[in-house]
Amino acid sequence: MTIDPKNPVDVARALIACESVTPDEGGALALLERLLAPLGLEVERPVFSADGTPDIENLFARRGDGEAFVFAGHTDVVPPGDVAKWRHNPFVGAAEAGELFGRGAVDMKGAIACMVAAVARRPNAGPVAFLITGDEEGPAINGTAKLLEWATARGERFASCLLGEPSNPNALGDEIKVGRRGSLSGTVTIAGVQGHVAYPHRADNPVRRLPKALSALMDQALDDGTEHFQPSNLEVVSVESGAGAFNVIPGEAKLRFNIRYNDRHDAASLTGLVRERLDNALGAGGYNLDLEPHTGDAFLTPPGAFSDVVADAVEAETGRRPALTTTGGTSDARFIKSYCPVVEFGLVGRTMHQVNERVSIADLETLTRIYERVLEKATGA
Amino acid sequence: MTIDPKNPVDVARALIACESVTPDEGGALALLERLLAPLGLEVERPVFSADGTPDIENLFARRGDGEAFVFAGHTDVVPPGDVAKWRHNPFVGAAEAGELFGRGAVDMKGAIACMVAAVARRPNAGPVAFLITGDEEGPAINGTAKLLEWATARGERFASCLLGEPSNPNALGDEIKVGRRGSLSGTVTIAGVQGHVAYPHRADNPVRRLPKALSALMDQALDDGTEHFQPSNLEVVSVESGAGAFNVIPGEAKLRFNIRYNDRHDAASLTGLVRERLDNALGAGGYNLDLEPHTGDAFLTPPGAFSDVVADAVEAETGRRPALTTTGGTSDARFIKSYCPVVEFGLVGRTMHQVNERVSIADLETLTRIYERVLEKATGA
Repeated sequence: MTIDPKNPVDVARALIACESVTPDEGGALALLERLLAPLGLEVERPVFSADGTPDIENLFARRGDGEAFVFAGHTDVVPPGDVAKWRHNPFVGAAEAGELFGRGAVDMKGAIACMVAAVARRPNAGPVAFLITGDEEGPAINGTAKLLEWATARGERFASCLLGEPSNPNALGDEIKVGRRGSLSGTVTIAGVQGHVAYPHRADNPVRRLPKALSALMDQALDDGTEHFQPSNLEVVSVESGAGAFNVIPGEAKLRFNIRYNDRHDAASLTGLVRERLDNALGAGGYNLDLEPHTGDAFLTPPGAFSDVVADAVEAETGRRPALTTTGGTSDARFIKSYCPVVEFGLVGRTMHQVNERVSIADLETLTRIYERVLEKATGA
Repeated sequence: MTIDPKNPVDVARALIACESVTPDEGGALALLERLLAPLGLEVERPVFSADGTPDIENLFARRGDGEAFVFAGHTDVVPPGDVAKWRHNPFVGAAEAGELFGRGAVDMKGAIACMVAAVARRPNAGPVAFLITGDEEGPAINGTAKLLEWATARGERFASCLLGEPSNPNALGDEIKVGRRGSLSGTVTIAGVQGHVAYPHRADNPVRRLPKALSALMDQALDDGTEHFQPSNLEVVSVESGAGAFNVIPGEAKLRFNIRYNDRHDAASLTGLVRERLDNALGAGGYNLDLEPHTGDAFLTPPGAFSDVVADAVEAETGRRPALTTTGGTSDARFIKSYCPVVEFGLVGRTMHQVNERVSIADLETLTRIYERVLEKATGA
């Protein structure tokens, strides 16, 4: 099968046909190498390893000399779930009524196809690179973070980066992500003394202290938002105490929380705030706090020259000026932001991670043209 | 082996040697039949059955005509747990330093041995019966409740009943139980909408309503006690919400509670009170309440002639006037109270249900004498 690299629908179909569920490469990076090399890019496929995680293949490609504009993304996808519930096989790329079905159609093989097509259509653009990983949906340990270290160790420097995550909630042109909130998770354990319900004076039911602990964490806002971020938010995601036996007073209560926070906080200041509120509610010795490994503070690429380039390109092709937002989950932009300005613009995320994930075929052409404009402007070509 | 029925230590040892962990009869009721028949008692061993529960053997014995004084109890025992942790095999009845070791030593094979010895030593007492089940530590469906129905259907009538549960917390003579609290259990479910922590506005975290629900149930007392009962008490015995994943807002929160309540309440009035408090906290439609099958309201054998007989006997043998209490868990007295006045007096419960359960050998002789006095007075012999 010959694939026209200038046709994003062809490329997207071929990528969807690769079963690249994390951590499997599934042929997706090999396909990209086959497509990019004839376009004049030098391609490398470093494999990174770490104890306790699977080895992961990655791809770095570059054309031209000097500080490169970067297209970044991932070819790995989340599992399809119950395949029988899909209207079309999730690893075929079937088209129906103007849409292409398949796992990764919007998150984010479709956007990578548009990047390839943009580079193919603009052979005279300035220096451009691809940073593509197979470990974004997984632990993200052997992926973009290591690929950036590896590339800069080889002397690579980057001018700016467009990450192709599905940034639009409803329609192409809705939003450019110029930052992401940080995330901090922890477990609060309240100790008690187990006993029989008929003899409560011999026990100490930790559930009696749960309302205070929960209220301390949830009732008071963490802040009221900042210029580019919504207010930080804490959710208690689980509460566990007792085993369901009706005659046993539990000996321990546990609650787990996650905070999505803006640029008013970092992990250390937030931990201090959580401890202060729990100290007030339970006493300093009245609980134990265990934090999960930290996955990243909030970051912002301040709106400016680079975000203007992307917003102008979006507006030129869609007729709409995209909002600059910082909502949603985390992405690999949290690693890239330390190397160069990074913003995210991709397809419409509505069906991502769901059964019948699908992309509008028209959007693939429009996004390719947007990427072409960004490539031209960002590389000064 | 010949067993002297007048010697409670001999009888207790022989009973402990029967491995009668609920629902197994383990030879314990056969042994009682062998001991009671030569004492002039007619013995019956009805077996009761119900769907979903094991068949259970029971024993009814009687000597003399007319309304009988009843010794009631159970030969079944809870499992021994880790046998390696016992100082002596739990099914042997080994003696050490004035104590007899074994599962059931105080709960309540020891007390049954004292009942047998008392009846053996008082051949001229008035009409006396034994109501012994093998289903007290289990579901209690094929035990005392059905044995009472079975006996009254045959025309049996009872004047009063002494149940041999270990009623003394620390020393023989501490307490006679003249009633027991009721028990009511239920599950409160608070519905929410599951979602991703990064998009809390699309979810509805039910944990946010947990503090109000918990406070509604726990903060306000149910009453301040009554003449013979301590205050009713509610314990939340489990709280469950979420699966421990840090990025998922849970869709549901569940709490389970148990109430031990006095004679100011019954199951219906308590249910109304719980609903009223939850309605105020969560709104009438804001939760779902599922009650467990009810195991019995509070009951009281009002202190009077019969409790005086038992208290006098205890005081005569121990030199201490026992307190009349209603504390602790449930017992089969909740079934017997509908047929005749019933009080509970037995051994010292401190080691019941524990590893190295054991009884003072001296207590077995003292309790036999107390039972002799009660038998004599209660039957007017």
